[in-house]
Amino acid sequence: MLAVTILGNNSAVPAFDRHPTSQIVTMDGINFLVDCGEGTQIQMMKYKIRRAKISHIFISHLHGDHYFGLVGLINTFGLLNHQQDLHVFGPSPLQEIIELQLKVANATLPFQLYFHTINKDGILVDESKFEVRCFRTNHRIECYGFVFTEKKKPRKINLEKAREAEIPANFYKKLEEGLDYINKKNELIKNEEVTFESSKGKTYIFCADTKYDESLVPHLRGADIIYHETTYLDNLKDKAVERFHSTSKQAALMAKKAKVKKLLIGHFSSKYAELVEFEKEAREIFENTEIAVEGVTYQV
Amino acid sequence: MLAVTILGNNSAVPAFDRHPTSQIVTMDGINFLVDCGEGTQIQMMKYKIRRAKISHIFISHLHGDHYFGLVGLINTFGLLNHQQDLHVFGPSPLQEIIELQLKVANATLPFQLYFHTINKDGILVDESKFEVRCFRTNHRIECYGFVFTEKKKPRKINLEKAREAEIPANFYKKLEEGLDYINKKNELIKNEEVTFESSKGKTYIFCADTKYDESLVPHLRGADIIYHETTYLDNLKDKAVERFHSTSKQAALMAKKAKVKKLLIGHFSSKYAELVEFEKEAREIFENTEIAVEGVTYQV
Repeated sequence: MLAVTILGNNSAVPAFDRHPTSQIVTMDGINFLVDCGEGTQIQMMKYKIRRAKISHIFISHLHGDHYFGLVGLINTFGLLNHQQDLHVFGPSPLQEIIELQLKVANATLPFQLYFHTINKDGILVDESKFEVRCFRTNHRIECYGFVFTEKKKPRKINLEKAREAEIPANFYKKLEEGLDYINKKNELIKNEEVTFESSKGKTYIFCADTKYDESLVPHLRGADIIYHETTYLDNLKDKAVERFHSTSKQAALMAKKAKVKKLLIGHFSSKYAELVEFEKEAREIFENTEIAVEGVTYQV
Repeated sequence: MLAVTILGNNSAVPAFDRHPTSQIVTMDGINFLVDCGEGTQIQMMKYKIRRAKISHIFISHLHGDHYFGLVGLINTFGLLNHQQDLHVFGPSPLQEIIELQLKVANATLPFQLYFHTINKDGILVDESKFEVRCFRTNHRIECYGFVFTEKKKPRKINLEKAREAEIPANFYKKLEEGLDYINKKNELIKNEEVTFESSKGKTYIFCADTKYDESLVPHLRGADIIYHETTYLDNLKDKAVERFHSTSKQAALMAKKAKVKKLLIGHFSSKYAELVEFEKEAREIFENTEIAVEGVTYQV
């Protein structure tokens, strides 16, 4: 199961009961936190997120609306006596900022806190069932999007057929991986004759803050869901360029060019009390667009 | 007018819809912010505090629940294009922490931000109508309480009597200051014969985090209202000592010994869902005690 729960869908200044960027990506039973604007821990309580399941936090960039809640959350984990390791990924000098604040508070954490400084595209977490990688976006300061991918599941053995073909059980692991079998008579038993197709792993992509930039399309290609920022409506596209942000239509164009299945939009400017126009404008270009609503979980 | 509005009355971990420490002291038409836990800017919006009127911020100490909302608030002031100077008072290295975060975000503020490092007891702001001073409390790390005092107002001239006594108008200023007058016949006209008593300036004291320590009594003496922390109920007084905090009864004892007029209690541990016991225990020792309720303004 891969899913994303929105904790904050607003840009820098909180407004209209919308909060700065934060979301929970659930994959393989783990809660991954993506960005952590001020008040994220309060949003987690409101939406009953199991904080104890958070072992990895990914910070896209060091504009405050994406990380000012991080030190408070780490502090709270400490006060609640969390024990499991916590891995924090983000650009430099995130580690310095957090460590300085923990030091002056004389805080000792009851868990191991590991910082992983991101400075280029690449794989951040590689587990048997999933991976997380990052890619640089085009923002005013160093900023990264995150790709959450379930790995293709192993093929399933068709036991009846496999026995019929007299394949030894110690070759089953290789069958799961998709290999063919050659028996003692030198006959080829094709993998698909003795296994069932596995379900394809899903992909969710958090595109972070970025101006419209088609060079990002390859990173997004074919994803099941992408979350793309839409700070402004189309009529403010000049402002979007100037501030390294995107408009409703630009987000939709990226979704279209990358042939993704679904687009979630968020990171709305505080100037907008109503959001319905964002969805309307985006759908003119990419029909399967939804506004990312705080507290809602989207199944990928 | 001197008043305090509570924005957060909880200790470190937000819970039960209670928030970390923050309050607005209103004096001479200015909003002074005292401490700024995470989410303070959101609390300000909720309770319709006029952010534009905030020119001075006082941070008692560098435990996160007292300042993690500060950088976000400063950032928001910038995004909202505030123009007036902002003065921030707090212990070292608050300035370093805030400046580092502004620097990495590539943020330029449209107003002048002045840091004033506190490292001893003394006067922080001295204006004609009021003053703010600080005193060191007894906490785990360097921590300061803040005393807000309206200066005694000038005496009011009793015009009829002053004319009767033939006091020249150019001496009226001195009459307001309380001086007597000697007329041409060398007769003493006592000040109280020709002026009315002025109203005494009021005093509000934010006592910050502290363990019970009677050496603080002189700082609190005679105040109209003190806000004192009561992290724990009386049965956890050992824990209070260990963590450099106070209990309900200890706060009340301080109020009693310092002969203050009223006690507000707050900074409740997240372990307490209900707060009524705090008030009950404190009132056994000091009757005029109230729980500081978020969103409520207390007139001094």
